Amino acid sequence: MISVQVNASSAYPVHIGAGLLDQTGGLAAQAVKSRRCAVVTDSTVGPLYAGRVCASLEKAGFSTLLYTFPAGEQNKNITTYSKILEFFAQNRLTRSDCVAALGGGVTGDMAGFAAATYQRGVDYIQLPTTFLAASDSSVGGKTAVDLEAGKNLAGAFWQPKMVICDTDTFSTLSTETFADGVAETVKHALIKDREFLDFLMPADLRQSIPQVVRRNVEIKAAVVGEDEFERGTRKFLNFGHTLGHAIEKCSSYRVTHGHAVAIGMVLATRAAERLGYSPAGTLDTVIKANQRFGLPIECPYTAQALYDAASGDKKRDGGSIDVVVLEEIGKAKTVRLDMDGLRAFTEAAL
Amino acid sequence: MISVQVNASSAYPVHIGAGLLDQTGGLAAQAVKSRRCAVVTDSTVGPLYAGRVCASLEKAGFSTLLYTFPAGEQNKNITTYSKILEFFAQNRLTRSDCVAALGGGVTGDMAGFAAATYQRGVDYIQLPTTFLAASDSSVGGKTAVDLEAGKNLAGAFWQPKMVICDTDTFSTLSTETFADGVAETVKHALIKDREFLDFLMPADLRQSIPQVVRRNVEIKAAVVGEDEFERGTRKFLNFGHTLGHAIEKCSSYRVTHGHAVAIGMVLATRAAERLGYSPAGTLDTVIKANQRFGLPIECPYTAQALYDAASGDKKRDGGSIDVVVLEEIGKAKTVRLDMDGLRAFTEAAL
Repeated sequence: MISVQVNASSAYPVHIGAGLLDQTGGLAAQAVKSRRCAVVTDSTVGPLYAGRVCASLEKAGFSTLLYTFPAGEQNKNITTYSKILEFFAQNRLTRSDCVAALGGGVTGDMAGFAAATYQRGVDYIQLPTTFLAASDSSVGGKTAVDLEAGKNLAGAFWQPKMVICDTDTFSTLSTETFADGVAETVKHALIKDREFLDFLMPADLRQSIPQVVRRNVEIKAAVVGEDEFERGTRKFLNFGHTLGHAIEKCSSYRVTHGHAVAIGMVLATRAAERLGYSPAGTLDTVIKANQRFGLPIECPYTAQALYDAASGDKKRDGGSIDVVVLEEIGKAKTVRLDMDGLRAFTEAAL
Repeated sequence: MISVQVNASSAYPVHIGAGLLDQTGGLAAQAVKSRRCAVVTDSTVGPLYAGRVCASLEKAGFSTLLYTFPAGEQNKNITTYSKILEFFAQNRLTRSDCVAALGGGVTGDMAGFAAATYQRGVDYIQLPTTFLAASDSSVGGKTAVDLEAGKNLAGAFWQPKMVICDTDTFSTLSTETFADGVAETVKHALIKDREFLDFLMPADLRQSIPQVVRRNVEIKAAVVGEDEFERGTRKFLNFGHTLGHAIEKCSSYRVTHGHAVAIGMVLATRAAERLGYSPAGTLDTVIKANQRFGLPIECPYTAQALYDAASGDKKRDGGSIDVVVLEEIGKAKTVRLDMDGLRAFTEAAL
């Protein structure tokens, strides 16, 4: 078992290793005072792992409750969130009990938000079961649900008391779902750690998962420790995301998040190199990293379509937008662009 | 204008005075960086004051949005909360904009919760228009909405950037709504400040409103400064509330909150005196204070009915409950009771 400490407004451990779900109870008993735990999961992950998690918790002296919601991003909304809260209340969960979020990013974000707001906040632990959630969303305390008007618009900063990444759970992931984690891994290396990129390039990712998750978590922890509430440097984690989100939108979300971010990193770096924000050769490294891990590099949309999707309502407001670019490999910075600047950036990206 | 400083995890001023709503813009410009403000109000208060508030904000350079929801505690729920959030999103409110909660406790609690969770938290200011909200709920950062399973079960601790109490707004309050604030005023004096009680007893409350609100806010600020997240002494503010809530429930909420708390303080003190938690003579003072301000002292329900309502689901769990009693006039303490203890306490209360 590898353990990484996160030092945000509260400090907590991230445990990484094979088969750790069976140790949930013992580890949770060290992390929270409560001995009553509501496990929240979805209809895909629940049948695979909820039994083992509840058994481990009960063996360690917890009483458990289980709530399963229908899997899918379309259910990450206020309706499901309120059902989780009513379930807590009907089962008389108190402020001194705790919540466990068992699943991918949707589950972690939504169960975390329910924990953040049930009786104004109860303890929770994250049990991520995807490479992406383990490497990214389960660490750092961002919780949220989607509104009709957009993704993650309702939420809270609420740090977990512990994160347990059982790397065995990644074995059931599809290639596409695994790629979501790969893209964020490459992103972490590009914005923060050139040596990590050097380690990744010749590595067999599936064979090196514990080490790769560890480094992802260390990078995420460093960023969050520096800027928990995303007022500055935490924005670097959005590298590839401005145009990546635009690609997702243009595709009506048929292009996955991982693939979209991968293309977004290439586009942002091409624009940054052409506009003088990144040194020559940066784009070449980003493209090679994508190709090495089977991530796409070509954008199927026009500059006009990307600009329309990325600028959205901001066009009417004359607003501005922070775009993340690479000062060099392993070092990011933000560039504030007005809408004309964003148009020029998008045109230079293709 | 009187100003009181609250020192919670963030520090902010509470401004108290006649006609202050017309100064909202100038005061807000000092309290928040934003120059865009979404005013949230209800269908009772909006027609009376929203125009003046928006005009003052605009005069000070703010652009404003106005959202009005149907008045009433029954609308303090997740459905109205989500409509407020969608309104923010549709109008492209950003993390650097702000929210103003204009109204009584329902508005302050719900708009505060929306501000706490929209894009994981935006600045907000409280503009309480009832004696109760000005003296109690607008200060201290407790935000919430009701669930089907109970009151205030979803929420967050989120401190406002400023509170403005325009005491002129109390002139339109019904006697019953005014009494809600009176009961909490008496409560503040009883749990924390004997001299304040001595001031109140001969006073004409309606004539001394700014001074009374000031002292209420000072007491609330002291309690919140000591225990913002209600892990200990903030519970003293629940004096009269355990049996008060039971009375509200027994009456199907026909007995108002203020009247219920007033009776609850009498009951808790009678039990505390009989069981030796409070010295002889304490009950007499509590009864005289209630009578002085026209608050009720007689409970229309049996001990059995109160016990059933107060213990609720806890009977099945064998749980415990913290009841607040007076160690002396001006000083509170909590007593932890198991369900047998609560039964004995309730029987001694009548």
